[in-house]
Amino acid sequence: MAERARRGRPGYDLQSVLQVAVVLFNERGYDGTSMDDLARRLGISKSAIYHHVSSKDELLRLAVNHALDGLFDVVGEIEALPGPAIDRLERLVRRSVEVLTERLPFVTLLLRVHDNTKVERAALARRRDFDRIVADLVKQAVAEGSVRPDIDPAITSRLLFGMVNSLIEWYRPRAGSADVADAVAKVAFSGIRVEPS
Amino acid sequence: MAERARRGRPGYDLQSVLQVAVVLFNERGYDGTSMDDLARRLGISKSAIYHHVSSKDELLRLAVNHALDGLFDVVGEIEALPGPAIDRLERLVRRSVEVLTERLPFVTLLLRVHDNTKVERAALARRRDFDRIVADLVKQAVAEGSVRPDIDPAITSRLLFGMVNSLIEWYRPRAGSADVADAVAKVAFSGIRVEPS
Repeated sequence: MAERARRGRPGYDLQSVLQVAVVLFNERGYDGTSMDDLARRLGISKSAIYHHVSSKDELLRLAVNHALDGLFDVVGEIEALPGPAIDRLERLVRRSVEVLTERLPFVTLLLRVHDNTKVERAALARRRDFDRIVADLVKQAVAEGSVRPDIDPAITSRLLFGMVNSLIEWYRPRAGSADVADAVAKVAFSGIRVEPS
Repeated sequence: MAERARRGRPGYDLQSVLQVAVVLFNERGYDGTSMDDLARRLGISKSAIYHHVSSKDELLRLAVNHALDGLFDVVGEIEALPGPAIDRLERLVRRSVEVLTERLPFVTLLLRVHDNTKVERAALARRRDFDRIVADLVKQAVAEGSVRPDIDPAITSRLLFGMVNSLIEWYRPRAGSADVADAVAKVAFSGIRVEPS
């Protein structure tokens, strides 16, 4: 307690440093944010930050991996599921929406990454792996006759995740994430049109 | 001809300066691009650029308005159409995809605009006007019983344009834009699922 008071502010753990860093990266861009900016926002010294991470780059790596790990956990979940590909695909879409809403600033950062550094290129490579898994699942569902065959599966999967990823532009936590997952799944799988009965 | 040779390079007109500027803004970010960078890329002097525009800000204004004008032309087109709201909505979605593919770098720039400057804030205001028109059209189609009423019309329109706007991430001109407009319309209005017959 005395130890804490002497440092002037309560100490941050790595997770809190990371959360503040991600918000700042999203506000100013990764390139536009310095460790000085981050220290100022946190109200601690730079050396206090270096107690947790070795570099700005490491903060970026931890942040984008938090987003990617969430998405790959979903992949792990659905790969274990029995049943037709379309059910796994719908589960993947719904769970991805949930990951996006739960880890919104982290996924926002991930989706804006360029390919300037090794960390960024590694993140983009993992994103491509994820996209490939989605495209393969769509392909499988087309082969099983449950997804429309008249659109290139690569385009279908781009459009699916175009919808999902658009959440970073407009989702605000007050909307329930379950409702949003439901809305995305309905539009994606059945479309917005009411068929005349 | 002698005049041209003396300047070392053929002169650019405003449209070509703008096109190169937009590519550069998309590569490095608007804030990260200087008029010196642009002059270097064009291989002309800064004063030759100032012959066409008064500032970097004016380039941005012209560029984002080129994107916005395309979208508002579509609004003008569909407002003149008779018939049910859902038909106008489908036309709006298809024609917006065409505008995106035809003016891809301009729309890309528009969709990445922040709100740091007056020009950027004006662009965001026009984007919001466009979004409101889409949301109103969805609302009208719901009232006419042709768009599903179980999703908030604001969310439906966000998802529609989430799909449309995702094109800036993955569309490459070799894919025919008519095919892409068709794919977006099919997924958006009817969904990806093949209903068991």
